[in-house]
Amino acid sequence: MKYGRTYNFSAGPATMPEPVLEEIRDEMMNYRGSGMCVMEMSHRSKVFQQIIDEAEADLRELMNIPDNYKVLFIQGGATLQFAMIPMNLMKNGKAVYIETGAWSKKAIAEAKKYGEVIVAASSKDKNYSYIPDCSDLDIPEDTDYVYICENETIHGVTWPKLPNTKGHILVSDQSSMFLSKPCNVADYGMIYGGVQKNIGPAGLAIVIIREDLIREDLDPKTPIYMSYKTHADAGSMYNTPNCWAIYVCGKVFKYLK
Amino acid sequence: MKYGRTYNFSAGPATMPEPVLEEIRDEMMNYRGSGMCVMEMSHRSKVFQQIIDEAEADLRELMNIPDNYKVLFIQGGATLQFAMIPMNLMKNGKAVYIETGAWSKKAIAEAKKYGEVIVAASSKDKNYSYIPDCSDLDIPEDTDYVYICENETIHGVTWPKLPNTKGHILVSDQSSMFLSKPCNVADYGMIYGGVQKNIGPAGLAIVIIREDLIREDLDPKTPIYMSYKTHADAGSMYNTPNCWAIYVCGKVFKYLK
Repeated sequence: MKYGRTYNFSAGPATMPEPVLEEIRDEMMNYRGSGMCVMEMSHRSKVFQQIIDEAEADLRELMNIPDNYKVLFIQGGATLQFAMIPMNLMKNGKAVYIETGAWSKKAIAEAKKYGEVIVAASSKDKNYSYIPDCSDLDIPEDTDYVYICENETIHGVTWPKLPNTKGHILVSDQSSMFLSKPCNVADYGMIYGGVQKNIGPAGLAIVIIREDLIREDLDPKTPIYMSYKTHADAGSMYNTPNCWAIYVCGKVFKYLK
Repeated sequence: MKYGRTYNFSAGPATMPEPVLEEIRDEMMNYRGSGMCVMEMSHRSKVFQQIIDEAEADLRELMNIPDNYKVLFIQGGATLQFAMIPMNLMKNGKAVYIETGAWSKKAIAEAKKYGEVIVAASSKDKNYSYIPDCSDLDIPEDTDYVYICENETIHGVTWPKLPNTKGHILVSDQSSMFLSKPCNVADYGMIYGGVQKNIGPAGLAIVIIREDLIREDLDPKTPIYMSYKTHADAGSMYNTPNCWAIYVCGKVFKYLK
């Protein structure tokens, strides 16, 4: 194999397309005449603004993301999202979670810190080896959202079809399946994923969220970094973002187009 | 200039040493016979463990960090630290902050969410153009820590000497001066910085914290990612860290040695 590269079947981080790595290598000492590497440039520069704008535009095209959804680039991985989701989306302090393996369990444990968590279905009885029937869940009227991990890497189960949320907002962790199959974004209130499993380098989560779910009236103890509004209002640049990961993901999006 | 690179005097992100960029470029397609780029490898692999271990060891050597201090690699930049510091270090719910410019102001605003903040000295009267006299501050006995931003990039002031904390713990934001001059780590309870100003690529903060300050008994609403104990117990790998930034910073540390 060229460059002596291994066949990497790891569950993650992602193997990256060789042409993408070659381009990154060739732009290392001087990105397109800017005189610098992307790691050295200001996130407030025109050249980086173009990189992040193109990355977002290409992802929007790939996933056919409707205009009323924001695309946010946030640090901290899925782990930080496990807390950000209840902090931002629990208006009534109540959410339904479906327990299907290690990652939904972690999300449940974190959400319990911020409100009532109803585990409406679970496959714990058979060591998370199947996806429970979610066609007729018992969902209280005032539930803020229904949460699933759409692909559980450790227990190896994936959702064949989405749960019936009975009109409630669906939030999905797509970390290990991001861009792996067609997905109708409008079926979800929010889709998110750490990019390192399927797209690019670790250190970045992508959040695709319906605009009307972005709230201002959060608990006053919410860290400013953990408000989706902070990131949405600042075009994901309230503080210095993970510019490198955005650059690399942007190249992968272009490659996939 | 070689490669047509610019002279980059930007206040940040950091200009990187050319030999470091050349090494990264040359390791892009296959890192030292591993068959992959660092962006593609598991953070649980031996080869990445060696990268993070060496980065930490080299930083310890460069800064002469005592053994009773932990070195943590955390995502979210200084902005997430503005909240993590009071969440983790406010035992009595009280801290003294010195207001010297834009960055200490942001830290103060965030800390106020979690406890009582006493601004014991400020240079606001002259638009943050000087460092106030901190030789005899009025510091309540039960203050948990004294906080400074040791170099304020926007207002352009730096501390000629550290404040007299009267035996209280000193916490310092060194983002824009990290590794720029000798620093006696034992004078501080905690030193931290976003690495993008002085060392490497954005998306990583380095926290150097005295072990006894790492607590377990935090507010139950603290996100698991925002507990220093989470990161300390897991060797900065509770979840997938920003492997790329750790790899690049490690190379810069080796270059500086």
